[in-house]
Amino acid sequence: MSNLEEKRIQTEKVYSGSFLDVRKDTVKLPNGESSTREWIKHPGAVCIIPLLKENFILFIRQYRYPIRKHMIEIPAGKIDAGEDPLTCGLRELEEETGYVAEKLTLLTTIYPAIGFTDEKMWIYIAENLTKTKPKLDKDEFLEPYPLPLDKALKMVWDSKINDAKTMIALLMFSQLKNFNL
Amino acid sequence: MSNLEEKRIQTEKVYSGSFLDVRKDTVKLPNGESSTREWIKHPGAVCIIPLLKENFILFIRQYRYPIRKHMIEIPAGKIDAGEDPLTCGLRELEEETGYVAEKLTLLTTIYPAIGFTDEKMWIYIAENLTKTKPKLDKDEFLEPYPLPLDKALKMVWDSKINDAKTMIALLMFSQLKNFNL
Repeated sequence: MSNLEEKRIQTEKVYSGSFLDVRKDTVKLPNGESSTREWIKHPGAVCIIPLLKENFILFIRQYRYPIRKHMIEIPAGKIDAGEDPLTCGLRELEEETGYVAEKLTLLTTIYPAIGFTDEKMWIYIAENLTKTKPKLDKDEFLEPYPLPLDKALKMVWDSKINDAKTMIALLMFSQLKNFNL
Repeated sequence: MSNLEEKRIQTEKVYSGSFLDVRKDTVKLPNGESSTREWIKHPGAVCIIPLLKENFILFIRQYRYPIRKHMIEIPAGKIDAGEDPLTCGLRELEEETGYVAEKLTLLTTIYPAIGFTDEKMWIYIAENLTKTKPKLDKDEFLEPYPLPLDKALKMVWDSKINDAKTMIALLMFSQLKNFNL
């Protein structure tokens, strides 16, 4: 296997908004030439598969402005500075759904868009949920959307669930043998 | 189900590089208040699952600068202006691997990162491949990486393949019954 590494020569912050941090780097290519790479610096995110009773999973439904569509997704959110993924998962689950989980189990980690961001996502399974109260950000609007696993999986195959993190969560979780839904 | 739409009031191009197009929009929230949304405008991309003989899939191995790692992925590339996804798929497959496909079948479409981009990806299965020659961009370095389906799937479960589009492609393709690998 070849070493195809692109080495950083220089980095520049070309846009820093309230949400997006855009970088433009000069890199040395494997052939010795130089080129530029533009990318979004991201703190990482955590996604949760909340297991309810009787084979239901607690999805959320929200409007996603970049694609201008209502989407059905598993709860997820960005990691705060210095926060570990597990703490973030518990926090985001409670904020978005109003459930506290007794147990989180890591299902997998994914890179959603390696062409232009360093975002990494941790996907956890959440069990033994207790209801408290959601605490949404003031510009965050979403609603709970519980679905049985088999119906949600069918929606993946019918392109009614087409958010990448939610698809991976469902396709992998449905193949596990050690969760008694 | 509630209408949670966020209506565009104003849009501004805040960074336009050679690769990234960054927008900052003012939106009207469902409660009537206004807020800002930053997002990346993307032309969409096409991914290909190239079926070789004897149960092998043709992956590619390349260095992904944003995450600073070598990754094993299915071939993929951005849609050119005015190009349809199928034409893009055939073009990118040939450019990146040097194979021409006789038949493409749509497996699914996904949204990889709905939090901050409108990127949509089409995933096709490519059959009846004929070898020609790769035509890589001059700053593109990658190598072919054929793997049997069962080995690639195991790498998904072992987090050795953790690129989202490639994970979804493998998890869904492996459950199809009508492809005789």
